[in-house]
Amino acid sequence: MDRSEVRALLDAVATGAMSVATAEASLGTAPLQGFTDLGFARLDSHRGLRTGDAEVVYAAGKTTEQVITLLSALHGQRSGRPALATRLTDEMFAPVRNAFPDCELDETARCVAVGQLPVTTGSVAVVSAGTSDEPVAAEAAFVARTYGAEVHRVRDVGVAGIHRLVADFGVLDTADCLIVVAGMEGALPSVVGGLVGTPLVAVPTSVGYGASFGGVAALLAMLNSCAPGVTVVNIDNGFGAGVFAARVARQSARP
Amino acid sequence: MDRSEVRALLDAVATGAMSVATAEASLGTAPLQGFTDLGFARLDSHRGLRTGDAEVVYAAGKTTEQVITLLSALHGQRSGRPALATRLTDEMFAPVRNAFPDCELDETARCVAVGQLPVTTGSVAVVSAGTSDEPVAAEAAFVARTYGAEVHRVRDVGVAGIHRLVADFGVLDTADCLIVVAGMEGALPSVVGGLVGTPLVAVPTSVGYGASFGGVAALLAMLNSCAPGVTVVNIDNGFGAGVFAARVARQSARP
Amino acid sequence: MDRSEVRALLDAVATGAMSVATAEASLGTAPLQGFTDLGFARLDSHRGLRTGDAEVVYAAGKTTEQVITLLSALHGQRSGRPALATRLTDEMFAPVRNAFPDCELDETARCVAVGQLPVTTGSVAVVSAGTSDEPVAAEAAFVARTYGAEVHRVRDVGVAGIHRLVADFGVLDTADCLIVVAGMEGALPSVVGGLVGTPLVAVPTSVGYGASFGGVAALLAMLNSCAPGVTVVNIDNGFGAGVFAARVARQSARP
Amino acid sequence: MDRSEVRALLDAVATGAMSVATAEASLGTAPLQGFTDLGFARLDSHRGLRTGDAEVVYAAGKTTEQVITLLSALHGQRSGRPALATRLTDEMFAPVRNAFPDCELDETARCVAVGQLPVTTGSVAVVSAGTSDEPVAAEAAFVARTYGAEVHRVRDVGVAGIHRLVADFGVLDTADCLIVVAGMEGALPSVVGGLVGTPLVAVPTSVGYGASFGGVAALLAMLNSCAPGVTVVNIDNGFGAGVFAARVARQSARP
Amino acid sequence: MDRSEVRALLDAVATGAMSVATAEASLGTAPLQGFTDLGFARLDSHRGLRTGDAEVVYAAGKTTEQVITLLSALHGQRSGRPALATRLTDEMFAPVRNAFPDCELDETARCVAVGQLPVTTGSVAVVSAGTSDEPVAAEAAFVARTYGAEVHRVRDVGVAGIHRLVADFGVLDTADCLIVVAGMEGALPSVVGGLVGTPLVAVPTSVGYGASFGGVAALLAMLNSCAPGVTVVNIDNGFGAGVFAARVARQSARP
Amino acid sequence: MDRSEVRALLDAVATGAMSVATAEASLGTAPLQGFTDLGFARLDSHRGLRTGDAEVVYAAGKTTEQVITLLSALHGQRSGRPALATRLTDEMFAPVRNAFPDCELDETARCVAVGQLPVTTGSVAVVSAGTSDEPVAAEAAFVARTYGAEVHRVRDVGVAGIHRLVADFGVLDTADCLIVVAGMEGALPSVVGGLVGTPLVAVPTSVGYGASFGGVAALLAMLNSCAPGVTVVNIDNGFGAGVFAARVARQSARP
Amino acid sequence: MDRSEVRALLDAVATGAMSVATAEASLGTAPLQGFTDLGFARLDSHRGLRTGDAEVVYAAGKTTEQVITLLSALHGQRSGRPALATRLTDEMFAPVRNAFPDCELDETARCVAVGQLPVTTGSVAVVSAGTSDEPVAAEAAFVARTYGAEVHRVRDVGVAGIHRLVADFGVLDTADCLIVVAGMEGALPSVVGGLVGTPLVAVPTSVGYGASFGGVAALLAMLNSCAPGVTVVNIDNGFGAGVFAARVARQSARP
Amino acid sequence: MDRSEVRALLDAVATGAMSVATAEASLGTAPLQGFTDLGFARLDSHRGLRTGDAEVVYAAGKTTEQVITLLSALHGQRSGRPALATRLTDEMFAPVRNAFPDCELDETARCVAVGQLPVTTGSVAVVSAGTSDEPVAAEAAFVARTYGAEVHRVRDVGVAGIHRLVADFGVLDTADCLIVVAGMEGALPSVVGGLVGTPLVAVPTSVGYGASFGGVAALLAMLNSCAPGVTVVNIDNGFGAGVFAARVARQSARP
Repeated sequence: MDRSEVRALLDAVATGAMSVATAEASLGTAPLQGFTDLGFARLDSHRGLRTGDAEVVYAAGKTTEQVITLLSALHGQRSGRPALATRLTDEMFAPVRNAFPDCELDETARCVAVGQLPVTTGSVAVVSAGTSDEPVAAEAAFVARTYGAEVHRVRDVGVAGIHRLVADFGVLDTADCLIVVAGMEGALPSVVGGLVGTPLVAVPTSVGYGASFGGVAALLAMLNSCAPGVTVVNIDNGFGAGVFAARVARQSARP
Repeated sequence: MDRSEVRALLDAVATGAMSVATAEASLGTAPLQGFTDLGFARLDSHRGLRTGDAEVVYAAGKTTEQVITLLSALHGQRSGRPALATRLTDEMFAPVRNAFPDCELDETARCVAVGQLPVTTGSVAVVSAGTSDEPVAAEAAFVARTYGAEVHRVRDVGVAGIHRLVADFGVLDTADCLIVVAGMEGALPSVVGGLVGTPLVAVPTSVGYGASFGGVAALLAMLNSCAPGVTVVNIDNGFGAGVFAARVARQSARP
Repeated sequence: MDRSEVRALLDAVATGAMSVATAEASLGTAPLQGFTDLGFARLDSHRGLRTGDAEVVYAAGKTTEQVITLLSALHGQRSGRPALATRLTDEMFAPVRNAFPDCELDETARCVAVGQLPVTTGSVAVVSAGTSDEPVAAEAAFVARTYGAEVHRVRDVGVAGIHRLVADFGVLDTADCLIVVAGMEGALPSVVGGLVGTPLVAVPTSVGYGASFGGVAALLAMLNSCAPGVTVVNIDNGFGAGVFAARVARQSARP
Repeated sequence: MDRSEVRALLDAVATGAMSVATAEASLGTAPLQGFTDLGFARLDSHRGLRTGDAEVVYAAGKTTEQVITLLSALHGQRSGRPALATRLTDEMFAPVRNAFPDCELDETARCVAVGQLPVTTGSVAVVSAGTSDEPVAAEAAFVARTYGAEVHRVRDVGVAGIHRLVADFGVLDTADCLIVVAGMEGALPSVVGGLVGTPLVAVPTSVGYGASFGGVAALLAMLNSCAPGVTVVNIDNGFGAGVFAARVARQSARP
Repeated sequence: MDRSEVRALLDAVATGAMSVATAEASLGTAPLQGFTDLGFARLDSHRGLRTGDAEVVYAAGKTTEQVITLLSALHGQRSGRPALATRLTDEMFAPVRNAFPDCELDETARCVAVGQLPVTTGSVAVVSAGTSDEPVAAEAAFVARTYGAEVHRVRDVGVAGIHRLVADFGVLDTADCLIVVAGMEGALPSVVGGLVGTPLVAVPTSVGYGASFGGVAALLAMLNSCAPGVTVVNIDNGFGAGVFAARVARQSARP
Repeated sequence: MDRSEVRALLDAVATGAMSVATAEASLGTAPLQGFTDLGFARLDSHRGLRTGDAEVVYAAGKTTEQVITLLSALHGQRSGRPALATRLTDEMFAPVRNAFPDCELDETARCVAVGQLPVTTGSVAVVSAGTSDEPVAAEAAFVARTYGAEVHRVRDVGVAGIHRLVADFGVLDTADCLIVVAGMEGALPSVVGGLVGTPLVAVPTSVGYGASFGGVAALLAMLNSCAPGVTVVNIDNGFGAGVFAARVARQSARP
Repeated sequence: MDRSEVRALLDAVATGAMSVATAEASLGTAPLQGFTDLGFARLDSHRGLRTGDAEVVYAAGKTTEQVITLLSALHGQRSGRPALATRLTDEMFAPVRNAFPDCELDETARCVAVGQLPVTTGSVAVVSAGTSDEPVAAEAAFVARTYGAEVHRVRDVGVAGIHRLVADFGVLDTADCLIVVAGMEGALPSVVGGLVGTPLVAVPTSVGYGASFGGVAALLAMLNSCAPGVTVVNIDNGFGAGVFAARVARQSARP
Repeated sequence: MDRSEVRALLDAVATGAMSVATAEASLGTAPLQGFTDLGFARLDSHRGLRTGDAEVVYAAGKTTEQVITLLSALHGQRSGRPALATRLTDEMFAPVRNAFPDCELDETARCVAVGQLPVTTGSVAVVSAGTSDEPVAAEAAFVARTYGAEVHRVRDVGVAGIHRLVADFGVLDTADCLIVVAGMEGALPSVVGGLVGTPLVAVPTSVGYGASFGGVAALLAMLNSCAPGVTVVNIDNGFGAGVFAARVARQSARP
């Protein structure tokens, strides 16, 4: 219920078009609306209005049926942005494709978008350190694109051979936001952050063994980066990085 | 040495104005220049060119004399941006003021800026959960301003009384970037991130006791935020958040 | 052996109705009795007398046969309260239903109650942040009901969309005890604890990935809640929360 | 703004006693009020209404002046409950006593209450394992009393000599809520929780050395208690336990 | 090579019965002997002489063939003590029984002893908190018996029902050494250690979930026990506790 | 109240020498006695009877006055064993000496014994790895002696020069129990445990820096010792090791 | 592009043999070359030139096809050193053997070398504590050999029977570099480092259980070794130790 | 006692020049000698013979008197290498200089060498990331020089400005061993290790704050380095790195 609706309600009361009791009930409950109750979930139908980006289906731990139901509900709700689900399991690929024949489904990223992709506004470069970091980088790229950013990819440019990175300096320097994905010692964001001043979101991955502790080593390295202007998301959280970077890109490009 | 300088050099070789030996020496060493050797430190004089933001003096663990020497060197180097030092100790306040009478020095933020503050481009809102988080929030605000952002402050709006936060909804919604500072359970970024879609940098603080583990509880909460688009910096790292947010603000406002 | 039994025994000695040797033996062993030895387990048959709530079967790590044996023993022991088993595995569902055709078995909660459910005394509201927290919330609800509380459920009201929570403010405010279940950043108890003064038991879940560390992030957040009056149980411990809340509800409602 | 105030406002609009503009402004801002802005802090003046217990001053990290200012503001606000500050430092004792000559100040608990203590409703027993746990136990007791509970203390009853505990069985059994405070291995709550069914809040303390890790050993033990119905608060958090226990006691005793 | 052998060698040199070269070689290599090289392993054939207890086969991570080869080698080496293997896997049970038809094999303890069990000297009581701790307790009991101790078992006497423990006070008080096995909060050793002064070895188990962290909670509790005279072994290390306790029992009973 | 006292009581009831009411009261309270209430502490006066070793004063965190009061109470209670206090601070040395002129006070061990030392029964060898481990080793030695063991010391025999250890092989082999104290990598117990079969208590110390984590590295190494029969106590817990070793020595020497 | 190539280019410009534009382009891009783009990976073809050792295929997380493609590319690139892949899975053994019939494939080490092994320069001794450490030791040995070192193996010489180690003193003393592999308490490097002054690389393994925490106990012990001159690599990182030791051996033997 | 001494002894026995008893005593005790007993310490006088490098005084936790006594004893023992002490405190500087007027004492490194520095054999480059890492780098450099290496220093070349590092490529490439010192995210060793193939010892420092956890972030990053051939020592352990690097340099330069 926005401010104009409140004024309309008060006008109706003032003119007698609405009873005090009805108005009271509306005021009491209206701001509490804004979700669709599916029984097993309360879909936040207001999120797009509040934050500019609609709710997303996190498929891990859900049944295939729940994922399809939620995608349908989200898809039915809005027109300008596709419904998005992340962390699909192998078993979900075929049923989701059957349910939404026109969907965009990326098996590496484990993501699906149902509905027309938006026109891009601003650009995001997704840089990854090694080939094992690919699924996380792909998720970030898929989400950033779905949220409206043009996406560039720079792959396999770990710090043990920095010249591979320098070859793509131009991409790093002209993007509106960078997503830098690395496991193991997680040094790549520091090196990139020392080369360019583009806003940089670092994504630690769980790639590594022994004292990498499932990505903790990379996470700590990124949090302690000596390059200023590096921010960090959770281990393997390509989704969060994609959302954030797309928002920065979107507003960087606004006319 | 940028691309135009390389071309000038090659032209000089082609025309015989420069010997091959001189050209070779220049090409060999030029890209390696770009720092001022102060004996105890190598000041990165190229950083401003590469990243748009000059090197900064991290005063913790340095002597007052080193801090003043570095500030002088940085201040002498560039004109458009003040020289900045962070994490000043109590003992440094007076000598630094004596050395730079016109400086901007904030004792809560423990920061000093030497030289003219830049005209602001874009805006950053710094939101803090409790009064004990103030030093970190002040550092973030000081740095963001020094890096060219207009800064708004929202204080003491912890999640135990959310209505205090909602009162400043407008500030949150219209800023180009948010910095949300919180210790203890670190829940504030999730709540703010659920209300608005502005890019949000969360800063965990070491405020708390017992199982807060010096800010680890807040750090983990922020990394696991269920609100998409939340990125995180190191515990108590107001500086890093300020740099990042100012960069986002700067490019969000570019014409 | 309670105080009236001791007096009866002493009276019998004083009147010669019981020999000193018999009395000595009774006094020596009586307080040590109070369990049923099943060979592989010593069932604590006194627990109901001491604490008001009988011993419960924790099925994880036990065989189906052991679970059924223990349920039978408990069921045979007392009349006023059903025998309860938690953490049933998938394989136990059918055999347990066969053994106790009238049982109440909830597959989501993984709990079974054998025997008549008690009349409710007091009420408990179980609030959960996301759909993945459902199994833990269901366990808490099942146990609280079995222990005699009327139970209300509020689902999928995570802090990224707080209005979904506010819609159920009345339920939160009028319950005798709240159980708030959340994974990831575990912020929900702080928000709920800032809205109402009802005693609140927070249950962290292992829902999340990366730096959630199997529920540690949520656990730490809840322990550091800035809302006073929040207490916490072990990760995924719906059982413990249910017992505690039912006890608070029971005595809150006592006439 | 509660529900009756909304109705009054709507009535005024319906009868023309209030203009639509005024009503709109009130509705827009009223729910956002509810705090007193002291510059360095936003005192949550609604908390007492929402949760039944007013905001409290956490003195650690604040100046003596800030503590006195906040106590005055809280004391001026309400009549039925004293203003409370916790975690006072040694230096605050004298100035606080000077500022509030009639205050109740406990140097072991490091707490002060300004204003008349409430009549007690319900009872809380505070049980501590060792003499070193006394400050935390004293804080819990002070806060529980200030929040309206009658308080009983049982001291130095660590599990290495359980008979000391059994001597006070009656106190444990008849209280409305128990607070059990222990450091080192933190076993006392499990033993107490096996003896009685009273709701029990366990408080781990930082007492210990080496692998106690500042209270972590006790915290983990309490979270893993095999006695059902044990809940836990943060390490050394006597305040939180006191608030919670007083609430349980209060509603247990309601007529 | 003991002192009498050295003297014999020197006598032989002095009398010319042995050449200097032969003597030198013997002195150089003799102390270095004392193992049997099996290719994949160097069996320490001196360990029994040095420590009184022969080397043992830790089967985890070995093939069934290696386990049988090592058991044969150990069995062939000495007569007075059986060859022992621990941590057998399910697949090893049948082949080991086939290879050593007269062996003693305990499937719960996952241990096998090949050869005649020794006459007992001294006694060990193995006390366990819950039914899930049984495998670890069984390993401790099996090993203690194999190393020559008479073993008594007390089962399922967790601290949530202490009277079950007190029923076996006599066993605890008269043993030469106690092994106390517990998971979850690991409080049992503290309670037992407060009741009797018998040397006590505590064994934390990995039984539990959530914040038990695979036995860490129990381990920390036991290391921080407020009962003096409690020592601790690794999580689930029934073997180590059994060896240690049997040694204490053995020397306690020596005439 | 032991079994003979119960019989005497029942006889008195049977003969009418004692009323039923008196007997009931005695039975109800007798087992609950066994401590001296000093107000700030409940001195466990039964501990010596139960466990063979009286309660001990842990001085850390207590005032000098409390320590002297507790020593006096303990000293007054029993004759055969001195009253013991550990972890004295520097400030306590002089006042404690003044209060008990004949006491045995060791400033390195930070321990005092008030009263006649017992005749020794059995022997304990205390082995330490480096000079920095001396305070912990001294505490262990002091306590073992006070508890009745003859004590031998072997100092500075770290594994980087094993021949220093071998020089004292005889001491290690003939003691009734070993206490092995080491910081840093904590390897000494494994080496000693491979040489002799004497029961061995390992004490990790907080000596080290960086990744020693205040003794955690040594603690973990000792818990994972590949030498069987090594048990471990808390970091820096010389007291616990001393009590345990003295008990083993005592019963090893019993005729 | 090395220095002689730069000079040739400049000479060509000076003599007019190359245009300024061509020279500029070469200078701009040449240093950025040095990798082969395979689509899913950027093979660092310069690494051998820069560091003396070519890039290696880490097979974990890659498909068998990717591993074979990468091995072919590496093998085609250089002649003097075989192409190496580590961490092969069981499924890769047969296809890799089919693809490269002359390869050297070690199933214990899970490594393959394609191409002629180099002549050895210098020697490395690989010492392992137990039979379970064999796979890690084998990987270290395989890699060291592939990188050009002569390799000696000393197996199963854990510190619980040190004489087994002393038997191979000569091997330890004459090698150019030692690799010491151990799990559990990780004490072996300290003991070896106390015996000889040969450069020593310690490799912790994940062998152990409970508080070994997957190799953390061994890692910490090695980092805290009291023997100077011990360096450490990641848990189970036989590869890194092999590369490092071969480099030390290579330069130790250079004429 | 080395092999030639054993032969001489046996010859003396064979020729009757030495009695069997004398020979036996020598053989029995000789290998056990090799240390000087100073009461509070057993100085390992054989270490230089065994490992090529004499024992060193670790001054932390020792008194100034102990440090001087140990330095005198070490200095008196050998001629070719100076006596070395590390981790001197401020208070030790003057007394140590007084005791050894010709000593080499470096206050930044907190080290002293007493006696003639050896002629250098081989070279070590010590590279540090920031000015705060200087004390650790200085310790490494001092120790490497004392152990016989020529030392080159490269300072303040953190990865946020990599060109500063490239300027010293020649130094990195020609050294016999590298020591790379870094705090915060610890990325420098990976970058250096990708540029050159020189054996590289990484030293994490405790420089940083928040989630650097006193150097843990840097330690983990270095252990997980994607550049092969990087080994690691303990946090702030410049000493260990210096010893190791000097050994590698020494043997790399041997003729």
